[in-house]
Amino acid sequence: MPRDLTQEIHNLIERGRDRQLRLAVTGLSRAGKTAFLTSLVNQLRHAGIDARLDLLKPAREGRLLGAQRMSQPDLGIPRFPYDEALASLAGEPPRWPEPTRGISELRLKLRFKTRRARGLLGDTANLTLDLIDYPGEWLLDLPLLAHDFLGWSEAQLAAMGPERQRFAEPWRRAVAAHRPDEVVDETRLAELAGRYADNLRQAREAGFSHLQPGRFLLPGELEGAPVLQFFPLPGIAEADRRQLEALPAESLYKTLARRFRHYQQHVVKPFYREHFRRFDRQIVLVDVLGALNAGPERFEDLASALATLMQSFDYGKRSLLNRLFAPRIDRLAIAATKADHVTPDQHANLVALLESLLAEPLKDLRYADVPVRAFSLAAIRATENRQVESDGQRQPALRGHGLDDAPLLLYPGDVPARLPDAGFWQRQGFTFTAFRPPPADGGALPHIRMDAALDWLLGDKLR
Amino acid sequence: MPRDLTQEIHNLIERGRDRQLRLAVTGLSRAGKTAFLTSLVNQLRHAGIDARLDLLKPAREGRLLGAQRMSQPDLGIPRFPYDEALASLAGEPPRWPEPTRGISELRLKLRFKTRRARGLLGDTANLTLDLIDYPGEWLLDLPLLAHDFLGWSEAQLAAMGPERQRFAEPWRRAVAAHRPDEVVDETRLAELAGRYADNLRQAREAGFSHLQPGRFLLPGELEGAPVLQFFPLPGIAEADRRQLEALPAESLYKTLARRFRHYQQHVVKPFYREHFRRFDRQIVLVDVLGALNAGPERFEDLASALATLMQSFDYGKRSLLNRLFAPRIDRLAIAATKADHVTPDQHANLVALLESLLAEPLKDLRYADVPVRAFSLAAIRATENRQVESDGQRQPALRGHGLDDAPLLLYPGDVPARLPDAGFWQRQGFTFTAFRPPPADGGALPHIRMDAALDWLLGDKLR
Repeated sequence: MPRDLTQEIHNLIERGRDRQLRLAVTGLSRAGKTAFLTSLVNQLRHAGIDARLDLLKPAREGRLLGAQRMSQPDLGIPRFPYDEALASLAGEPPRWPEPTRGISELRLKLRFKTRRARGLLGDTANLTLDLIDYPGEWLLDLPLLAHDFLGWSEAQLAAMGPERQRFAEPWRRAVAAHRPDEVVDETRLAELAGRYADNLRQAREAGFSHLQPGRFLLPGELEGAPVLQFFPLPGIAEADRRQLEALPAESLYKTLARRFRHYQQHVVKPFYREHFRRFDRQIVLVDVLGALNAGPERFEDLASALATLMQSFDYGKRSLLNRLFAPRIDRLAIAATKADHVTPDQHANLVALLESLLAEPLKDLRYADVPVRAFSLAAIRATENRQVESDGQRQPALRGHGLDDAPLLLYPGDVPARLPDAGFWQRQGFTFTAFRPPPADGGALPHIRMDAALDWLLGDKLR
Repeated sequence: MPRDLTQEIHNLIERGRDRQLRLAVTGLSRAGKTAFLTSLVNQLRHAGIDARLDLLKPAREGRLLGAQRMSQPDLGIPRFPYDEALASLAGEPPRWPEPTRGISELRLKLRFKTRRARGLLGDTANLTLDLIDYPGEWLLDLPLLAHDFLGWSEAQLAAMGPERQRFAEPWRRAVAAHRPDEVVDETRLAELAGRYADNLRQAREAGFSHLQPGRFLLPGELEGAPVLQFFPLPGIAEADRRQLEALPAESLYKTLARRFRHYQQHVVKPFYREHFRRFDRQIVLVDVLGALNAGPERFEDLASALATLMQSFDYGKRSLLNRLFAPRIDRLAIAATKADHVTPDQHANLVALLESLLAEPLKDLRYADVPVRAFSLAAIRATENRQVESDGQRQPALRGHGLDDAPLLLYPGDVPARLPDAGFWQRQGFTFTAFRPPPADGGALPHIRMDAALDWLLGDKLR
């Protein structure tokens, strides 16, 4: 009887502990968020049946019993379109799911056996897992909170490289016709703002990532609202601050500054306050291979965008974020996606390259004592490994189908293990070909190292 | 000196008074909101130049000097797309502007001379006019605040006529498979909700107007969110209330009731609290001619939709709205739009028919002492009046161009002066043809009685 009581108390404590986890998934557009989340839900739904999850310890130990979809807690947030994504993958021919354009979520209840001493299985327990998907572009707006309009304006204009300048030229010429003290009418202001947004859109089309303000590219219901119609003002500097602040409320400078503040207060902050602050764990997906494909200036740009994005996770005691929102993310994963698009011998290089790309932010994170781990993975594996003879030597190759459904057998090239130098770009470059997803068979989706990422992100919550 | 002082005090009082007006424009989709607002802005911009505004007293008296566009106060609300609408009207061939899909606003500053005794002109003064455009469908949700889920459910199912039932049939069959105490999984719930939304969409396509909940048809950023995924539950009645309320939180009944409450609190109420409450004046546009075209069941449906919509303006002391939000609308206009689509001899009938259509709500409004006036108007006049010989008699006719740009000369038929009876529908029916807008000449847009409506809505603020 006394032993049973101890056991019961132990069970009660177990049940009260670690029973909720909010796991957030982000990445810049085309990083593979939708495929990742679809596969994650799929693997957990197939756990204990046909999912291959050997690197997820509770699955390997046979303790993960399954996962059920539940009603999500936030009724006003779109549900992650899992069924639609599966339908798209099950098409003939199979297609990648439509990318999501804002925040969405999905709740799972995981059932597992707890672990006892000497490998014995304990009671059945549940983990409520909330999965949240949101655009990495929203995190690019964090630094905007640290500036006022004048500072932001200077910083934005200083950061434009030569190619970016080219996209900005038409806006630049138009805005040059106006002085900061001028009263610019509504129509003209909307036109100038339109040109600035066009410049951001063109830069994104051309493969640039580090674009601010993030909502200008995904406006949603704010389309056409003045809060998305501001822009940096060329030719103003910190030295002019006193004069600028003395301008009348209707002046161009004051109007833009007012909209900038509204953007900070009513667009950027609510995301951190209402969502980000509540995340427990986070995975950041990065399309490293895509950036290698796009050449040096865009690769640099991705590095700078990621450095900015990672600031949201670097909350040392004195950070802006910590002061404003007290976030609680206690574990972070970064992952190079689409690892199936290179041969397995290149995977180690892919992780090494991801770590070089994020070297500075990773230093800061380790200094701030945020546990972080890097992975390379394929959420939905689109290729098979083959060996081909070339010049009498056996070489690894990939087999799959292109986006046009034509069969492909190719060697996409070597991934550099560190940041590519000028020599790399001239010598070899890199061209990886996009594959379409594999035909669906109704079973668990094939993947590469999803189980390793899952083990890091939630394995410890399934003990 | 003393006379000057009196004058100065008088001027000060004048300036402090009536200097702001928030005028809201609404109507069910296709009622002509976008054309109305475009014309309204256009007429005021052209006041004192080439706009024909003889029925607007301050314009007739030469006191209205002009209107300038200003920055709108609500930075987070889309600006009404006036320039886009004008560009569309100025196309070759001219086209009606794209309809707006949510709330939008635009601010004008009107400059006018005040009126002194004996017709003398006084000082120059300004009126800040905020124009707000929003979907009439949002007002159809007001009654939803007076119900809980059980009451709403019963009322919705009771209100479906035979044709509406037909659209609802696939949803009805699907939902019949579930009991209120059942735990229905997320995927199935989303599927049932999708079928219910399909039924609303099909009914709207088929010309029905009285459809609830309104946001299911214009979801915006809530697309895919659980708050837009509920539906009435057949087979439950007030008599079962106690049993139903005792069901567990995960039951179908409790889940739907929770979403219904979220919809009330986070979708319906915020519109009334943040927007509606701040309107000073309101015009409701009604496409009476379109409803005559659509036949008896849809005409009835429009009448019932309008009766519901008008409840938002009937705030006697004890009304739900007054208790919740204390609105302040002090003057209301209702207008039958597209008056240019019938011959001028039918305009009196058009107003009479509009008043019959709204007979019950108008009684309530007059009882509640809300000043209201009915108009027939054409925001942008698309036709010219002609006389044609027919059987040796001169008959009025309309000349213009169809939506396919072909020239038209026709007599569209007689408008009944009262609610059409079965005889009318059998005997004659009604077919009005849609005209495209007139070619733009850069001047003020041609209209019918926009000036009369403006005089009622803001004439008294320009004294």
